[in-house]
Amino acid sequence: MKTKKLILVTNDDGIFAPGLVSLAKSASKFGEVVIVAPNSPQSGMGHAITINQPIRLHKIHTFQDMDAYECSGTPVDCVKLAKNVILKDRPIAICLSGINHGSNASINIIYSGTMSAAMEASLENIPSIGFSLLDYSFEADFEASSEYVCAIIERALSEGIQNCNLLNINIPKLKKEEIKGIKVCKQAEGRWDEEFKEAKDPRNEPYYWLTGKFVSSDLGTDSDIWALENGYISMVPSGHDLTVYKAIEANKSFENI
Amino acid sequence: MKTKKLILVTNDDGIFAPGLVSLAKSASKFGEVVIVAPNSPQSGMGHAITINQPIRLHKIHTFQDMDAYECSGTPVDCVKLAKNVILKDRPIAICLSGINHGSNASINIIYSGTMSAAMEASLENIPSIGFSLLDYSFEADFEASSEYVCAIIERALSEGIQNCNLLNINIPKLKKEEIKGIKVCKQAEGRWDEEFKEAKDPRNEPYYWLTGKFVSSDLGTDSDIWALENGYISMVPSGHDLTVYKAIEANKSFENI
Repeated sequence: MKTKKLILVTNDDGIFAPGLVSLAKSASKFGEVVIVAPNSPQSGMGHAITINQPIRLHKIHTFQDMDAYECSGTPVDCVKLAKNVILKDRPIAICLSGINHGSNASINIIYSGTMSAAMEASLENIPSIGFSLLDYSFEADFEASSEYVCAIIERALSEGIQNCNLLNINIPKLKKEEIKGIKVCKQAEGRWDEEFKEAKDPRNEPYYWLTGKFVSSDLGTDSDIWALENGYISMVPSGHDLTVYKAIEANKSFENI
Repeated sequence: MKTKKLILVTNDDGIFAPGLVSLAKSASKFGEVVIVAPNSPQSGMGHAITINQPIRLHKIHTFQDMDAYECSGTPVDCVKLAKNVILKDRPIAICLSGINHGSNASINIIYSGTMSAAMEASLENIPSIGFSLLDYSFEADFEASSEYVCAIIERALSEGIQNCNLLNINIPKLKKEEIKGIKVCKQAEGRWDEEFKEAKDPRNEPYYWLTGKFVSSDLGTDSDIWALENGYISMVPSGHDLTVYKAIEANKSFENI
């Protein structure tokens, strides 16, 4: 008897986010799904891990026909717990993270709990895909792109991901018939133009609340931002080596200090 | 009258960590130091930002002759607040983060609040350096390497960092006379071999606590792990583009889905 492939599903919006439910449903067509996700929203957690306090883990029974666990830690903690505690010794065929409510294109990959969870699995040699939909609302329509999501999962499972272990996939907020296809591309240059809203709490103590808007500075047609602005799903093969190789030789003079 | 260069100092071990005090003292020889750091230890916070709750910021008067602010947010929040609220409109000559208690070499850069704070400044086109000493103890000796730290800051201020904006510097736990010099190198391949200690709390509820050890899988002599194991300070020019360029063409077949 052929064993079903084991698919780990996680996210950063929390275990009850509609994007996770949609992704788990798509994944279940291709193998045995195990969900391990944070018990509360963890957007913007980046690659944070919990080291100074214990982590709680509970099996929940909300997802029909799927094993599901909620975790008090970060998205990266979820992946570590899935691999080392829940699925100990069982090979994970693929890790799927998302579908995130909101963009993780361009520099947003750095801040993203969704992508950090996927990256954590990729560090363990598990092929991993993070999915994000450019719609922050809780009522976002995940059905419009579900055929693409299914096709990407199926292909990654059958053919593998080439030359890397991690895909950052962003989906434009469009109707099904408006999506033009998939573009494999690079991470766009960009930054957040930010400000802090300053206000006073009921005790008259000041506080600050982060706000801002993303500004792309990339004019190329080979970037994820271009793909998304032109109706395509963007797919950026991604990694964890932050070395800027062209800067090694250029900074050798520091060795003469 | 020549204005002194403005130097932002931050960290992830919290504003009272000895490593921060040491770095601020070194930095003060080269300009006007402003410290903005978390009000509690934030190791392993990665590039986390605080978006779902307000952030508190207080000026403190513990550091003689230096402006210092403690912040309830993450290391990345500290840099954002420094730039957008505290130092609004004042050009920051350099951002220094650390000196971290413990290694941020190899893959540890991904999890590091120290390096994420420095990276955040680099995203704003501020030359940035993260410093880490391979000694986790609170009583770590930061004096042994302080001449190197000062020389690196001085050179980065006078000559700049070439072809990138961010340096990941790790210092071996050695006596002053044992440090052989600086190696400009690449981020080593490596991973954490992890486990979770499972235990029961006083109410008999289970909890998990992350533990593990770093395993280098990089045999090259051009990596930061090699440099550190051979008595050198490692310096990795780093960036924020996670694209794996050689994988773009290799995965183009996904466009045919």
